[in-house]
Amino acid sequence: MPTNSGEHGVVVVGGGLAGRVTAWRAAGLGLPVTVVEPDPLTDPGGARAASTVAAGMLTPATEAMFGEEPLMEFAMRSAGMFADFVTELERAAGRPVGYRATGTLLVAYDRDDLALLTDLHALQQRLGVAAERLTGRECRRLEPMLAPSVRGGVLAPDDHSVDPRLLLRALAEAGSRAGAAEVAARAEEVLRPGPDGARLGVRLSDGRTLPADQVVLAAGCWSDRIAVPEPVVPPVRPVKGQLLRMRVPDGEPPLVHRTVRGLVRGFPVYFVPRADGEVVVGATQEELGYDTSLTAGGLWQVLRDARELVPGVTELEVTEACVGLRPGSPDNEPLLGPTRVPGLHLATGHFRHGVLLTPVTGEVMAQVLTAGTLPDHARRFAADRAPGGGDRGDSHSTTLEEQWN
Amino acid sequence: MPTNSGEHGVVVVGGGLAGRVTAWRAAGLGLPVTVVEPDPLTDPGGARAASTVAAGMLTPATEAMFGEEPLMEFAMRSAGMFADFVTELERAAGRPVGYRATGTLLVAYDRDDLALLTDLHALQQRLGVAAERLTGRECRRLEPMLAPSVRGGVLAPDDHSVDPRLLLRALAEAGSRAGAAEVAARAEEVLRPGPDGARLGVRLSDGRTLPADQVVLAAGCWSDRIAVPEPVVPPVRPVKGQLLRMRVPDGEPPLVHRTVRGLVRGFPVYFVPRADGEVVVGATQEELGYDTSLTAGGLWQVLRDARELVPGVTELEVTEACVGLRPGSPDNEPLLGPTRVPGLHLATGHFRHGVLLTPVTGEVMAQVLTAGTLPDHARRFAADRAPGGGDRGDSHSTTLEEQWN
Repeated sequence: MPTNSGEHGVVVVGGGLAGRVTAWRAAGLGLPVTVVEPDPLTDPGGARAASTVAAGMLTPATEAMFGEEPLMEFAMRSAGMFADFVTELERAAGRPVGYRATGTLLVAYDRDDLALLTDLHALQQRLGVAAERLTGRECRRLEPMLAPSVRGGVLAPDDHSVDPRLLLRALAEAGSRAGAAEVAARAEEVLRPGPDGARLGVRLSDGRTLPADQVVLAAGCWSDRIAVPEPVVPPVRPVKGQLLRMRVPDGEPPLVHRTVRGLVRGFPVYFVPRADGEVVVGATQEELGYDTSLTAGGLWQVLRDARELVPGVTELEVTEACVGLRPGSPDNEPLLGPTRVPGLHLATGHFRHGVLLTPVTGEVMAQVLTAGTLPDHARRFAADRAPGGGDRGDSHSTTLEEQWN
Repeated sequence: MPTNSGEHGVVVVGGGLAGRVTAWRAAGLGLPVTVVEPDPLTDPGGARAASTVAAGMLTPATEAMFGEEPLMEFAMRSAGMFADFVTELERAAGRPVGYRATGTLLVAYDRDDLALLTDLHALQQRLGVAAERLTGRECRRLEPMLAPSVRGGVLAPDDHSVDPRLLLRALAEAGSRAGAAEVAARAEEVLRPGPDGARLGVRLSDGRTLPADQVVLAAGCWSDRIAVPEPVVPPVRPVKGQLLRMRVPDGEPPLVHRTVRGLVRGFPVYFVPRADGEVVVGATQEELGYDTSLTAGGLWQVLRDARELVPGVTELEVTEACVGLRPGSPDNEPLLGPTRVPGLHLATGHFRHGVLLTPVTGEVMAQVLTAGTLPDHARRFAADRAPGGGDRGDSHSTTLEEQWN
């Protein structure tokens, strides 16, 4: 396994957050690096990449409910890196990323939602994360637009937000300034090194082949649409999300002052406000393959739950309806680092946490590209792990790759 | 008052359905005619003109509920003209207009809605229009996707539909083939003829002035934004409508087989299916001035009622969210024909009925431009009528113009 780059350097397949943070970090380490990405950054509304659709919540504490503790620890690590990461990136790129350290308020709509929220708060306390239990009245004191029916909440003072579109542009700019090259083409195939002298490389849709010492496959849920050597087809699946971008009319007060997440009769809904008046409201979670159609049902669900929680949302202008595909893995945890093909690494499977995991993904992939191994804290997320966690003490012996191929 | 065109002919201000049907008819009569319209027809989604947003229902029988009997008679006349009008127009333009003679099913969601529907049916019978009362089961036999809760309905076999975007393009093409000219500019001012030798004309945003023997102001709800001589500022107001264009997935059966209109807890909602799988679902009716923002509340209302009536609508892809401004008049009836300024006529105020009234508007305006008078059947809608109907036997003596200026 190559532990350092030779003449051809690193080819990163995919220009989303995982790919671009990897490219920026690789370029910063002096590795020659090229990003292969067919969609330009100029039209975020047109792109389907999860990175350009995502709301940008950095909310490990209030996500804990839906995740597992090891993933949460990984997410907490990334959240803890975020402020310094933003400072470094904004300086390197010369542009802002819309980071807002406002905290997050998670609220419950009905009695059942409140029971779930109480369980979450207990988990948060066990994990030692900052989270303050509030009554419904205390929630409304913080966020006066909340519905009178809100039963109670949890304030997570360290759960912040960022604008993923700005973050993506900043990473592209910082990568470019650090020397990363960019190829506007679709990757069709990863070519495997072989005993017959065949070299690792990436064949593009325009017919060219980019030779590579190392390849990072970071194409989100499309990572398995690219022809790769048999044993390492990434076990990703698309998880569709529909959400709305809205705008508070000029001169009006903000709809909410911080990220507000809610459970409404068991359905999660969120509001992520930005400094410029944009409010991102989402999102559905649908297992429908690669379908990216905006549906009446998706819009309906988001609007229904948003309106229950913050009735004043009906006054907002809708500026964009977005559909994205999150890259899910079999256990919904990231797929990071080396595969069985020497030099071919994965950086995908971030599912609902891609924005939050951006700094730690950069850290992990930098070590992968230079040392050929994952840091200890990320070993659980090894791309070649067994399903259910072969190195986590259970008895499964098939690998994820075998299970999915 | 000029009864025929001299050297400068007719200038029509506004390229919506009212303006273009007038221009086509005028050109067909041999009058020199020029349409002034700033928005191109090439981007119907971008335009805000009511004509490009409207669903295209030709439903006088099922509209009767919300209107008055004289307007309904006028609408019935236009509906009766429609089939021949379409034949003539499609031949003249060499393109289709998406006319579908499918009939309309009007249904009631709850007991109160059913009571209103029963009243409507009584009115329909008094007026002698074709309308058959159906049970909920009979409605579902015609339209199997209707919700089980639908209480009953009325089938109006003569209430059809057309595609207003195709209709508008066909009228533009037919007008052009008949010799109508087109100026892509905004009309800023109608210049009044005067004793000092001043001539009737239209001053454009590009600085030019088009002299005219007759001017037809047909700029929808913007007709009062154009500087016109004091006594004839058209008393129009914008009535905002938000609606959704959806699409049945390829290979799926139609959502509905005919226009379906419903009352859902007092709110009107409609589905207008087209042969190509498009379904137009709408619409809000909001008095908010010239605001054309798409709002979360507008989408919410349309989706809420649509889903109650036809739950399967949630499976449809949303292809477009549209906002339009209907031109309302003080009594919500059209404003047609001569004003107090010699040679200046109105063709606006069609409110919710602009598509349906297209053929009769063409007929009426042709007589106005050639004879200087309204046909008897249209006298009620005279542009210079008194509010509440000065010639309809009541005692008001102020004119609409006086009331609104």
